[in-house]
Amino acid sequence: MDWLLTPGPVRLHPKALEALARPQLHHRTEAAREVFLKARGLLREAFRTEGEVLILTGSGTLAMEALVKNLFAPGERVLVPVYGKFSERFYEIALEAGLVVERLDYPYGDTPRPEDVAKEGYAGLLLVHSETSTGALADLPALARAFKEKNPEGLVGADMVTSLLVGEVALEAMGVDAAASGSQKGLMCPPGLGFVALSPRALERLKPRGYYLDLARELKAQAEREAELLRKEAQAAKERLLQEAAQELKRLRAEIERARQEKALFLGQVRALFEGYLEALKRLEKTP
Amino acid sequence: MDWLLTPGPVRLHPKALEALARPQLHHRTEAAREVFLKARGLLREAFRTEGEVLILTGSGTLAMEALVKNLFAPGERVLVPVYGKFSERFYEIALEAGLVVERLDYPYGDTPRPEDVAKEGYAGLLLVHSETSTGALADLPALARAFKEKNPEGLVGADMVTSLLVGEVALEAMGVDAAASGSQKGLMCPPGLGFVALSPRALERLKPRGYYLDLARELKAQAEREAELLRKEAQAAKERLLQEAAQELKRLRAEIERARQEKALFLGQVRALFEGYLEALKRLEKTP
Repeated sequence: MDWLLTPGPVRLHPKALEALARPQLHHRTEAAREVFLKARGLLREAFRTEGEVLILTGSGTLAMEALVKNLFAPGERVLVPVYGKFSERFYEIALEAGLVVERLDYPYGDTPRPEDVAKEGYAGLLLVHSETSTGALADLPALARAFKEKNPEGLVGADMVTSLLVGEVALEAMGVDAAASGSQKGLMCPPGLGFVALSPRALERLKPRGYYLDLARELKAQAEREAELLRKEAQAAKERLLQEAAQELKRLRAEIERARQEKALFLGQVRALFEGYLEALKRLEKTP
Repeated sequence: MDWLLTPGPVRLHPKALEALARPQLHHRTEAAREVFLKARGLLREAFRTEGEVLILTGSGTLAMEALVKNLFAPGERVLVPVYGKFSERFYEIALEAGLVVERLDYPYGDTPRPEDVAKEGYAGLLLVHSETSTGALADLPALARAFKEKNPEGLVGADMVTSLLVGEVALEAMGVDAAASGSQKGLMCPPGLGFVALSPRALERLKPRGYYLDLARELKAQAEREAELLRKEAQAAKERLLQEAAQELKRLRAEIERARQEKALFLGQVRALFEGYLEALKRLEKTP
């Protein structure tokens, strides 16, 4: 492999490489469902969100477009600071999505200043966390705070493609409502999966568009998958409980039987004892 | 691996499995560009088209949506026969894309009849070649012919997800203008890549929409990648030619030098010969 100093995909983690060489899991098997649910749980932890993380087949760019098209309706006003190649992409995606976009330009290498985004009248702010094209890290918490002071109803969306599992990420704690990422950077997995993390606040305000990008439909499908697994788990648990109860009953019955035998034995011993006493009494009575 | 009798992904080809276990190629290396171009060329052969095949990161469903959103503008009328789960999906995608959709229902297991699609006034016809959900194979050539007799300007789009490299596929020869497919069926590769094949006719009539799905932008990017590779190849060829010319010149110079030496040798021999003759003549002259 060549070593190129570009913001390309990272080397794969040996475990990822090993997993790739194994036969594929059929997506309708229980094993695949379990892997999927576990992955979603781990991603929720990685984004540190109480909301949801959706896994999409596609690149980080697809996740960025899904974020924009599911959070904002055409005609809504958004603020997009541009300070590198990927914030430029966010700007292009917002334009194509039919949003009214205000662009704030910064020299490449800089990051936006909180005072610049402290402006009223916007439905959203789109930020790139780690601008891979320049290496600059934006101060998301300060920017989100400044924006939301002026736009309490506004939503903050962030590109976290190269910051997830590399830098500090905590969705709600940072004031971020939705974030996009991918599999080929901090996760050290091959490219091909996009992630959209949605805070509880973002989940309440989805405005889905598109077929492949419709996150509401995707949430429903993933919830159904989860429900099916839980149903199966519940059924298995019920069967296990019934089986355990049956065994317990059997054990109790055996105990009762044993107790009954012990009682009979004990009563026999007591009777024998009393008979012994009676015998002794009779002997005493006969003694003058 | 479990064996499920569902239309899921196929087992991987051993070569695909082996390729997956190798370190990833960085997408900006020349080696990656060569693999990419070779793959596009092979896909063109597989679809048997003189047009283009675009490789997208996503599923077959993404390719279907890309086909619909790049061939037809909102408000255009399309005919969608529904005879299984995947033609149902084509119908839903066309609706979401803002097309005016006429749906033709058939019992699952059947395929549409050519006479049913021989109706005027449509910009397009969307067909599923092999309806994976029922196993039925639609007669694309007969359907495309019947539709185009009534709609000479109409475009025929086909879902070839499970027919590519499995059944008979020949894009233009079948009267199909664009087709969608994926990597996880006949190709015996893992899921994650979608293909859109575009006939020369479809290429002339693209009406791109969306950011990720914008096939015109994708065609441009892929053409640039191709041009860059060709430029590099041309440069290498030029350098090779110059090098060969320099060697040839060196060889010719050596030959001339050798000829010059041979000439000198020859002249020397001729001179020696003539001197011999002269000597003999002088001896003869002296003889009385």
